[in-house]
Amino acid sequence: MVSESFGREYALRQERVEETLRRIMAERRGEPTLLYEAMAYSLFAGGKRFRPVLMLAAHEMGPQRDGRIMDFAGAMEMIHTYSLIHDDLPAMDDDDFRRGKPTSHRVYGEAMAILAGDGLFNLAFEIMADAVAETPDDRSAKAMAIVSRAAGGEGMIGGQVADMEGMTLPTEGELLDFVHRRKTGALIRASLEAGMTLSGGGEGDLRSIREYGEALGMVFQIRDDILDTQGSAESMGKPVGSDVKNDKKTFVTVYGKERAQELLTQWLKRALASLVPFGEGGNFLRDMVGDAAARNH
Amino acid sequence: MVSESFGREYALRQERVEETLRRIMAERRGEPTLLYEAMAYSLFAGGKRFRPVLMLAAHEMGPQRDGRIMDFAGAMEMIHTYSLIHDDLPAMDDDDFRRGKPTSHRVYGEAMAILAGDGLFNLAFEIMADAVAETPDDRSAKAMAIVSRAAGGEGMIGGQVADMEGMTLPTEGELLDFVHRRKTGALIRASLEAGMTLSGGGEGDLRSIREYGEALGMVFQIRDDILDTQGSAESMGKPVGSDVKNDKKTFVTVYGKERAQELLTQWLKRALASLVPFGEGGNFLRDMVGDAAARNH
Repeated sequence: MVSESFGREYALRQERVEETLRRIMAERRGEPTLLYEAMAYSLFAGGKRFRPVLMLAAHEMGPQRDGRIMDFAGAMEMIHTYSLIHDDLPAMDDDDFRRGKPTSHRVYGEAMAILAGDGLFNLAFEIMADAVAETPDDRSAKAMAIVSRAAGGEGMIGGQVADMEGMTLPTEGELLDFVHRRKTGALIRASLEAGMTLSGGGEGDLRSIREYGEALGMVFQIRDDILDTQGSAESMGKPVGSDVKNDKKTFVTVYGKERAQELLTQWLKRALASLVPFGEGGNFLRDMVGDAAARNH
Repeated sequence: MVSESFGREYALRQERVEETLRRIMAERRGEPTLLYEAMAYSLFAGGKRFRPVLMLAAHEMGPQRDGRIMDFAGAMEMIHTYSLIHDDLPAMDDDDFRRGKPTSHRVYGEAMAILAGDGLFNLAFEIMADAVAETPDDRSAKAMAIVSRAAGGEGMIGGQVADMEGMTLPTEGELLDFVHRRKTGALIRASLEAGMTLSGGGEGDLRSIREYGEALGMVFQIRDDILDTQGSAESMGKPVGSDVKNDKKTFVTVYGKERAQELLTQWLKRALASLVPFGEGGNFLRDMVGDAAARNH
């Protein structure tokens, strides 16, 4: 289902993101050195660059190329990384390891981890604001607005709070839905939408890419929950069954494994349907969701 | 030295900021309610709105009016507030009270305080990004770039890290200077510069307002350090002599009280000199620095 060239095509885009992040951090590195060191530690801790790769892919599918896409892609990865640093803090999830490496607060202490997160968050907006200021236009300003909204109370941060504090919703399924649409889904959708916006995509393109983003986010999350019940600690980089142990609501604990797999298949179909208008131009994103549905790590 | 009308003129601008913050929070309030409640708790905990009032003042001194100035002023106060929430955290300064009220983590717990800070930080950028996207132009995009740079590693966050971790600089005075120019000075300068930029101020205007901002920041900080050695806990809202107790470097501990007062007077003169090109239009900022130099709280 996933074409042979997918791994190579992914790696090419991923390497462009790595280069951009290295360039940005090299330009901005300065005093106090410890802050930039801590920011770089987490930024280069082995992320897959999933969100920025999505952004590049959506941008390629739109009508025009905009040289600022790499800045936006780098900014998106910084926002994702800051959220991981803060989520891992002792007051939050209290995780000692992330992708097999000690988390920021384990290496630099809690105070520096908070500030390294703040620093990456801020740098993301510096990069985007500079990119917009270069040639202020609708496309870049809207792309920045899309990213900022998705990262905030109506998006990622709101999802994290809902996940942590719980909320009064009629069913467990609705709470699960609320959390994942925001906590992980919002940045995935925004990556795609911002990439398409920066390339000057029209309303139809934006609607299709948003539908795809919603479906991809669900596929990704459901697969994650299924893997958590069966994966090995080594391949997941976190203790197996940690969600179950923490009494965390997941698609598997709420719906059962079989129904979760059915839901995954439904969302996979919707993701593929949303790509029909893009024809062959949608092949990379077709592979992407196919890979997300079948991955073992 | 400070004109009689200053208090009234300050209050008028402060009230415009309050109204803006109330409007923004009313529009954005939603689920999860606890997040927005925690954000509002700190945002409306009795701040003087010093930075946004400076921004309004600088904007009034420039050639044109821009309706988006209130959004930028509100965003600046949100950035200031988020930095206070994070600074007060147990892992950082571990403060239980701020302006006589329990700090965010005392009321909402540490995890929510981290996220409320992140939420305000993000909302500031949402507000600015929306303001830029309304009519993408040089002035608004540059104003946003100025604010975002001042809040980051080269500004406020960098100053906080240097203050916390110390740095190897030839003298204690240079470290003190490094910290204050960034930790408190950067947002003060950026408020003035962004206000002037949004009003379309030219290079000369911008240079003058930056000089004023630098001097005002120093006057404010030196006066703060002097007050800390003599103020009452009630009027300062924090324990008297807490800087000395924590072995914190201040202008008084490094230079002695007499020399600190001399430095304050020098910076006051430089602030006033920088306002000469603005003629009577600079009167409010003249009063502002005079008030900062003489204040007892």
